[in-house]
Amino acid sequence: MGTLIRNIRPIGPSTSTINLRFEGSRITSLSTSELAAQDGDIVLDGSEKLATSGFINAHTHLAMVLFRGLADDVPLQVWLEEHVWPIERQLQPEDVYWCTLLGIAEGVRSGTTAFIDMYFHCDQVARAVEESGVRALLSYGMIAPSLEDRGTSELETSKALIKQWHGHADGRIRVALSPHTVYTCGEDVWRKAIELAHEFDVPLHTHVSETRFEVEDWKAKTGTTPVKYLHSIEAFSVPMLAAHCVHVNEDDIAILADHSVTVAHCPKSNAKLGSGIAPVPAMKQAGVCVAIGTDGAASNNRLDMVEELRATWMLQRAHHEDPMCLSSQEAVAMAVGAARGILGLPENGLSEGVPADLVLFDTDRIHTTPPHNAAAMLAYAANSGDVTDVYVDGQALLKGGELRTIDEERVKSEVRRLLHRIKNR
Amino acid sequence: MGTLIRNIRPIGPSTSTINLRFEGSRITSLSTSELAAQDGDIVLDGSEKLATSGFINAHTHLAMVLFRGLADDVPLQVWLEEHVWPIERQLQPEDVYWCTLLGIAEGVRSGTTAFIDMYFHCDQVARAVEESGVRALLSYGMIAPSLEDRGTSELETSKALIKQWHGHADGRIRVALSPHTVYTCGEDVWRKAIELAHEFDVPLHTHVSETRFEVEDWKAKTGTTPVKYLHSIEAFSVPMLAAHCVHVNEDDIAILADHSVTVAHCPKSNAKLGSGIAPVPAMKQAGVCVAIGTDGAASNNRLDMVEELRATWMLQRAHHEDPMCLSSQEAVAMAVGAARGILGLPENGLSEGVPADLVLFDTDRIHTTPPHNAAAMLAYAANSGDVTDVYVDGQALLKGGELRTIDEERVKSEVRRLLHRIKNR
Repeated sequence: MGTLIRNIRPIGPSTSTINLRFEGSRITSLSTSELAAQDGDIVLDGSEKLATSGFINAHTHLAMVLFRGLADDVPLQVWLEEHVWPIERQLQPEDVYWCTLLGIAEGVRSGTTAFIDMYFHCDQVARAVEESGVRALLSYGMIAPSLEDRGTSELETSKALIKQWHGHADGRIRVALSPHTVYTCGEDVWRKAIELAHEFDVPLHTHVSETRFEVEDWKAKTGTTPVKYLHSIEAFSVPMLAAHCVHVNEDDIAILADHSVTVAHCPKSNAKLGSGIAPVPAMKQAGVCVAIGTDGAASNNRLDMVEELRATWMLQRAHHEDPMCLSSQEAVAMAVGAARGILGLPENGLSEGVPADLVLFDTDRIHTTPPHNAAAMLAYAANSGDVTDVYVDGQALLKGGELRTIDEERVKSEVRRLLHRIKNR
Repeated sequence: MGTLIRNIRPIGPSTSTINLRFEGSRITSLSTSELAAQDGDIVLDGSEKLATSGFINAHTHLAMVLFRGLADDVPLQVWLEEHVWPIERQLQPEDVYWCTLLGIAEGVRSGTTAFIDMYFHCDQVARAVEESGVRALLSYGMIAPSLEDRGTSELETSKALIKQWHGHADGRIRVALSPHTVYTCGEDVWRKAIELAHEFDVPLHTHVSETRFEVEDWKAKTGTTPVKYLHSIEAFSVPMLAAHCVHVNEDDIAILADHSVTVAHCPKSNAKLGSGIAPVPAMKQAGVCVAIGTDGAASNNRLDMVEELRATWMLQRAHHEDPMCLSSQEAVAMAVGAARGILGLPENGLSEGVPADLVLFDTDRIHTTPPHNAAAMLAYAANSGDVTDVYVDGQALLKGGELRTIDEERVKSEVRRLLHRIKNR
């Protein structure tokens, strides 16, 4: 018993529709010609809908939805020291569970089927991922000046996470190792993390060259850029997800390309914090795989991949004064395709035999009328409210606009309650 | 018989709620303390909602929704010559009516209560505005090398529009005069337009310094910038709405400030067409009144003021690498307040005696949880799908998410039908 969707329009320049069938966790067939329904199949009419493989949020801190709108219009240091940290210190494991679920709910509602997350109390993050049915690459953000000073215990926490959760939930959950940045983890911690990544065959996930200050400061201290430094300690000898890469130079970009690093570009967060505009066209031209992430809601304030996709072309075209520097097709590919490799997924999400991670958009909206071109519709006109159905491994997480695996009202009330508790301590 | 909304949260830093009553076309009272309902009042519960005076779309070409997504990823000249113009030439007056209604419907759904529009077949634009109940400043875009070459007849068309529609529909419709640009209208046409603006006491509305090429080309031909040229012919002696102003220098900005010009900043259109990023902080610092517009859907591809508000802070903060260069409060004020003057509306939209042009946002959404700060919620997190109710002059145009004055299904089908007719000629 599977699901057959008839006459649906896939993302792409063609205006012809396809028929698509999935069963269990996999897409079983996909064709521009008629497909026969099999016994017991659910048959859906896909006309006036658009199909894409799911968005992958390539860098986020899901539980940080708690800080959404807390104190946005203040300088970074004030925000961290007076607002975020005092609350973060009080977070209990259960709190992280509820906040992560809220973040997942928001992501699913915007067509996200997979999240690459870095936070703490990661057992609770994993629990939320397992229960909600999404796909994720999780990691514990390690902060340690040296192995002696916190490093060994941070690495133990990461190792325990790998042992307990890597490959869990029918393979939907994978685990990475996350030294937080070059400047918050000592070289011995980095070297040990790289060694463990080889040993457990898991990727690394870190923040790289997010702000101009960070890069200048690192250069002043070490004489080299963060990317070159990471290269020198062989951090790119394992699959690497490098978040941000806003301030990377030509040499850095060549290193990222040579080592098949996946960059998680976070345009809205980089804009909101005033970090700048990453050199996306230069990276893409050099052959770097550039994916898109929202970062945490604290610096965004959304976990909405449709918005993020829009921010991507908008910032690049405005900055370079070039309407051709990033097409709608390219932007969509960054949001749906670019992070598939680091997640261990086959390249093409809409093909036979691959996991059925699918998203349907309603195109019969006033703001998508008339419906000229599918990729353009997604990149320029659609919004997350148009997402009607989301499947991961063939399981419906959103159906007709209703969340099926998350009790949305309960999650909202739990998050409000815990914030009230923390604020009134 | 009026409407009383209890316990609603207004945009602003305060977390206290207000009670707001309107009757006929005006807000009658507004208070943080209890307001008694009068006989026959409709009483609404505003808790879990946010109230703002309506967004004003300060520069658009509503009917251009027809070209949304038509051919986005091609160079400007190809787009105009091979795609837009061939269709535009075939547009009948009735077509402009239906397309304008679709644009208005999209705008209302995103919380827009007023539109500043420039197009042709303006009787049909006015008809759509009158019937739908929104507020508008309309103009006919004149293109004429000289009075002799089209100019006199273009001005006659504008004059007829003023006589027939200015002040019409209980004052909801106002008319402006629109020489299209400095380079598409001859000086004698401009001078006559300025004279007519004085005579009829109406504003001017034009495109100014949108692209780098336009400014360089104009300077090469005349030795001066478009803004300085307009100043020299006394175009700023009447109220002026100047769309774009992307490539304005310090002197230009001083002129705009000195003459109380209202600038319609169109960030998404400027980004999509690769025109660049307007110097918004410099203009604001110099005292220029900077409002926000979507431009036409052909170059956006939305008429969504929530998106436009977001694009505004995003581009500025990223470009200037400064998280403090445009706050959420400032961005919201640009979207709701800055164009009130040119429309002849009192400065503060949420005060007693002013027209009841109101928008309610549902704040009980997953992506606006938890609800920390109202302006931040609007600027950073809300989307147009959160708009539940829109009133103009006290009339409900959107109620509980349903359009009340526009038959949305009819409009969509008419627009699809006319596009089909044109494409299959």
